[in-house]
Amino acid sequence: MSLLTDLTAALGAAHVITGADLERYRSDWTTHYTSDPVAAVRPGSTAEVAQVMQIAARHGVAVVPVSGRTGLVGGAMTTGGLMLSVERLNRIREIKPGARIAIVEAGVVLDRLHEAAEAEGLYFPLWFGARGSAMIGGVLSTNAGGSNVLRYGSTRALCLGLEVVLPDGRVLNLMSQLHKDNSGYDLKHLFIGAEGTLGVITAAVMKLVPRPRAYATATLSARSLPDALALLNRLQMVSGGLVEAFEYMPETYMRRLAEARPDIRQPFTPRQEVNILVELGSTRPSDAVADAEGVLPLAAMLQSALEDMLAEGMVLDAEIAASEAQRRAMWQRRELAAEITVARQPAIDTDICLPVDSVATFFARIHDRLTTLDPGAETLSVAHLGDGNIHFTVFGTDDSADLYDRVVEAVEDEVQALRGSFSAEHGVGLSKLASMRRRKDPVALDVMRSVKVALDPAGRMNPGKVIPE
Amino acid sequence: MSLLTDLTAALGAAHVITGADLERYRSDWTTHYTSDPVAAVRPGSTAEVAQVMQIAARHGVAVVPVSGRTGLVGGAMTTGGLMLSVERLNRIREIKPGARIAIVEAGVVLDRLHEAAEAEGLYFPLWFGARGSAMIGGVLSTNAGGSNVLRYGSTRALCLGLEVVLPDGRVLNLMSQLHKDNSGYDLKHLFIGAEGTLGVITAAVMKLVPRPRAYATATLSARSLPDALALLNRLQMVSGGLVEAFEYMPETYMRRLAEARPDIRQPFTPRQEVNILVELGSTRPSDAVADAEGVLPLAAMLQSALEDMLAEGMVLDAEIAASEAQRRAMWQRRELAAEITVARQPAIDTDICLPVDSVATFFARIHDRLTTLDPGAETLSVAHLGDGNIHFTVFGTDDSADLYDRVVEAVEDEVQALRGSFSAEHGVGLSKLASMRRRKDPVALDVMRSVKVALDPAGRMNPGKVIPE
Repeated sequence: MSLLTDLTAALGAAHVITGADLERYRSDWTTHYTSDPVAAVRPGSTAEVAQVMQIAARHGVAVVPVSGRTGLVGGAMTTGGLMLSVERLNRIREIKPGARIAIVEAGVVLDRLHEAAEAEGLYFPLWFGARGSAMIGGVLSTNAGGSNVLRYGSTRALCLGLEVVLPDGRVLNLMSQLHKDNSGYDLKHLFIGAEGTLGVITAAVMKLVPRPRAYATATLSARSLPDALALLNRLQMVSGGLVEAFEYMPETYMRRLAEARPDIRQPFTPRQEVNILVELGSTRPSDAVADAEGVLPLAAMLQSALEDMLAEGMVLDAEIAASEAQRRAMWQRRELAAEITVARQPAIDTDICLPVDSVATFFARIHDRLTTLDPGAETLSVAHLGDGNIHFTVFGTDDSADLYDRVVEAVEDEVQALRGSFSAEHGVGLSKLASMRRRKDPVALDVMRSVKVALDPAGRMNPGKVIPE
Repeated sequence: MSLLTDLTAALGAAHVITGADLERYRSDWTTHYTSDPVAAVRPGSTAEVAQVMQIAARHGVAVVPVSGRTGLVGGAMTTGGLMLSVERLNRIREIKPGARIAIVEAGVVLDRLHEAAEAEGLYFPLWFGARGSAMIGGVLSTNAGGSNVLRYGSTRALCLGLEVVLPDGRVLNLMSQLHKDNSGYDLKHLFIGAEGTLGVITAAVMKLVPRPRAYATATLSARSLPDALALLNRLQMVSGGLVEAFEYMPETYMRRLAEARPDIRQPFTPRQEVNILVELGSTRPSDAVADAEGVLPLAAMLQSALEDMLAEGMVLDAEIAASEAQRRAMWQRRELAAEITVARQPAIDTDICLPVDSVATFFARIHDRLTTLDPGAETLSVAHLGDGNIHFTVFGTDDSADLYDRVVEAVEDEVQALRGSFSAEHGVGLSKLASMRRRKDPVALDVMRSVKVALDPAGRMNPGKVIPE
């Protein structure tokens, strides 16, 4: 029997998609990558995923798991492989408020989990732009990050248990609800962040946290990046670790924001070099009770810390959001980064991570390198500064592949010299295979290859991704 | 050349230990396990560890990494293998207070790291009884837990980077100081908790946290275990996640404590069923400034929450430590558990983990099972209740192997039915191999075997541990 006949027998014709109906599976969020799968299938249960994997094994067909297709590195792209979409595995199986966990399937959209948690007075603390489309399966497979990693960790840190269908169709049940389990190797960490190259994640047990009742949000300018880091540490100490986000917007970003969106109010005149968006969040009911002047204790704490730093000269200026509308306006400035970056092409995008105390050095060095490589180049960046994660973009004066390669290599050089990573939160997929080949420790690459061969000896799980040949 | 000649040439005679000098390496903390190694070696650098691994590979000798030898499951035991002690890899290479990390070698004793962090106003939040002897290498290899996991996570959550010597002597450098890194599989998680079966951990980058300036500590009795869990969630919310420890001591424990140590004051008369030691810790300077009556804000918050719960009937009685001496006395009651458990033999010890909302069900069910198995049996337990981790001990009326096996199997039955783990924080080593065989998902065992073969094809790294044949 043919592959499609077998798949149709297993899933029903409605869930084996070919021909013109494949259109919506061909492109992804980036629009840089175009897939040409043999078919897309939409299994409706873990058992059906297992059947699909068995059928694919029998026919020797590659399988590429896809969920919300919001990835930025081509990780869900395929030519000739079978796309396995988890979109119908979309049940929130259970929310346990007492235990603060959610048991969810891989096709649950991130925002649905946000809403379900909120209905219980809880929060699922993973927050990034694509939250209205990204699904749990992809979020886990890419170990997604975002703005709240500083406080709550990446996806990996929020996952207690996992269900995975292996390349040969066996189901690996690691659906633990436990906070401690030392019974052998912790296998879930192999599959989280593996971008579907070792198996298909079908369900997970995720941690929930108490929902903050009060936020205190400010935009400030710091004297320097090291001063900003000192401010972060100070705020962590005085607040007892309540910093939810600490986002850096350099002058180049604020300038481009002013040009692109003159309707958006700028925080400081004249523009400042080191602009920081900081947000504290507290679940303490006492932090949500305003004083006689309508000021929340959390905002008062933030104000007091900023005043101290102003007096010491480390903070140059600051404004605290006095209302939810002001808070949203501060976040809008930061969240327009994606739109503003994409608007100008050609752009050389990177997603790098540095030790938090090396961020300033990186900027100084890469500035020097660009002066030599392309004196007319402009840069734009925003950063999850508390994590050392910079989205650094270069607009070169030409769109040659040569300049692109030289800039990427220069960024990688400086990142490597400072012991950083060329991929902080977006993953490797196809777009960073060359970086993996050039920059990753060869012993680490060898160990990854050994693990890949051990779990997927036929090399049929999302082949050609993550690990360079 | 012989094995010992090669080792002596590499390390010098002083660091290749044989004969009578081996005595101190033969036994461990438990005294249940006795090793008979061919030799013990003490390499002084990562390069020397690599040499040892190459020499052992050439001679086909098994290698068992050892550090503080405080493990409880026989994980560092060997007959005929080469003991590789990391005790001379004892440098704290660097503490970076701004970045809040410590770069340490595997032979650093946990308490030395505590002291070094404290000197910088920081805290390394891993705290358990053996902290004066346990070394970082063993702590990582067993993914050690303890009393502060609730707030800061297990060892795994505190590790940013790792250096590992592989079985063939290659050095795998994963010494990242990064908070985000999605450049391929996160290999460090393979080695953390692998009990030395995949390689030798030689160094690590560990996270530090701000040191709490104020603690609020109380002993209370709750109406029931579910009420205790509700109390924990309430305290997490009102404190903004400041609960550092939430330890359960049932009546059976308090009774035995009274018998063994009549000098220790009991908290409640008459004795209560559900006794909880709770501790909050805060880095906020404002939480460390006492009011006019000498009460700290943190203690006032705890008191207020406990009074609410008293009024609701969920808390039956409570006392808050009014001084550091009273706080220490509360902790002493809990920390005497090890001494009191060991004092009575024969004892059937377990270290189990349950979903936090299933702990009460477990106690009810295991009580029923014991009534049938051995009506005269007594039990003793303490629990890291916030993690669902119970150290459950049974004193049978005889010391037969048959009763031992039946009790262990009954505990495992009930743990498995509630989707718990038979090993929460102590690991597998030798002592839980039978449990692994009986209880671990067969697919998970298969995947572990595949990983083991991929990384250690000759099976020479700590053979016979963790994965049953």
